[in-house]
Amino acid sequence: MTEELREAGGRIRLYVTADLGEGVAVPLADGQAHYLLHVMRAKPGMRLRLFNGRDGEWTAQIATAAKRGVAVTVLARTAPQDRLADIWLCFAPVKKTPADYLAQKATELGVTRLQPVFTRRTIVTRVNEERLAANAVEAAEQSGRLSVPEIAAPVTLEKLLASWPEGRTLYFCDEGGDARPLAAVANPSAAAILTGPEGGFDPGERELIRTQKFTVPVTLGPRILRADTAALAALAVWQSAVGDGR
Amino acid sequence: MTEELREAGGRIRLYVTADLGEGVAVPLADGQAHYLLHVMRAKPGMRLRLFNGRDGEWTAQIATAAKRGVAVTVLARTAPQDRLADIWLCFAPVKKTPADYLAQKATELGVTRLQPVFTRRTIVTRVNEERLAANAVEAAEQSGRLSVPEIAAPVTLEKLLASWPEGRTLYFCDEGGDARPLAAVANPSAAAILTGPEGGFDPGERELIRTQKFTVPVTLGPRILRADTAALAALAVWQSAVGDGR
Repeated sequence: MTEELREAGGRIRLYVTADLGEGVAVPLADGQAHYLLHVMRAKPGMRLRLFNGRDGEWTAQIATAAKRGVAVTVLARTAPQDRLADIWLCFAPVKKTPADYLAQKATELGVTRLQPVFTRRTIVTRVNEERLAANAVEAAEQSGRLSVPEIAAPVTLEKLLASWPEGRTLYFCDEGGDARPLAAVANPSAAAILTGPEGGFDPGERELIRTQKFTVPVTLGPRILRADTAALAALAVWQSAVGDGR
Repeated sequence: MTEELREAGGRIRLYVTADLGEGVAVPLADGQAHYLLHVMRAKPGMRLRLFNGRDGEWTAQIATAAKRGVAVTVLARTAPQDRLADIWLCFAPVKKTPADYLAQKATELGVTRLQPVFTRRTIVTRVNEERLAANAVEAAEQSGRLSVPEIAAPVTLEKLLASWPEGRTLYFCDEGGDARPLAAVANPSAAAILTGPEGGFDPGERELIRTQKFTVPVTLGPRILRADTAALAALAVWQSAVGDGR
């Protein structure tokens, strides 16, 4: 084990589901084992960091590295678990590459739940939740997050609104007349950003959204943003105004 | 010409370089003619909107639509020319798909100049300026902009800093100790966002950037953002704080 290899391992962060604590042995999932063996050329003794969304961040060391599996031993905690500012992204599903991108970027920007929402003009008919999750996990590992966003099962817009939780503000990215700049109306309570499909919400949907008492219509400026641009811009501005970007 | 076709045409916006004024005939570039003929099935009489970055937005009507070319006649002005908040994006070039995405999104977010910057850790060796421009034009057309961002010729970081214009603030997206939240330090003067390559700036470059009197180091929150996420988040936050997203 050269110093260089140890150093290379020190930059690896992996999300695991197992409990983490000093001396605990953690078996890695097949995909992670493959990545460590074949991409990072892992060997016993190599260090890495682990998080599970509950126990903070820990250093660990590879105990066994073989084709039949990779196991690591947890060493010491390097950071306590944090609690992210509570912001969901409710978005009409988009095609494969834009969906990958959206899940990655939203995770980097601290989203706590990715909620696909079917609307009348949504063209995509199926959401690949596993793929969303894989993108979110990878982005969480690379961005230094101590948790991964929840991937919620897709729902219709009507159902989303009908079961809206008490106390959560829904920022509706809309270009309607009375929408105000997000930074001017953002409040630090639990939040959600809602963006529509490429063709926008239909008039009935807009009316339904705007008449909910938890809805705050917001604008992100004078230009027409693509749905995914609007989602990322809104997350960035919200974090900057009332989240952990302050 | 059905009402439906006229309506479809009304959503088409094209960037042209010709001067625009009532009654002027504007020949369209080959790519635009192809798009109108084969994607939009344009016919004489169909309406569209034009802008050139100088004369505002105008309605126009297709005069001739044939394989050898499409010409339009300018009708009336629908919006005066605006002047965008002056913000550049100085970015280390990235691979093809992320570069397309960055040019599109930055244009939607109102960037006025896209400035590729070569740094020591930049892996991409060539910038396809035409492709950047094509992405920027398309995004300008779709986002309702009245101008397209300038695509500046790539320069080295050293040269960029040595020829920095008087009065323009350089917001350096950095994770260093004294970086403050962008929204807290943004000022409404001419601005530029600087983001590094995937591997970051090297220590010598960071020192060089931070010692310039026009540099303001900024942070976008506690997570490590990919270079392109940082660029888009910074543009969104700047527009929200002091630009036209207020």
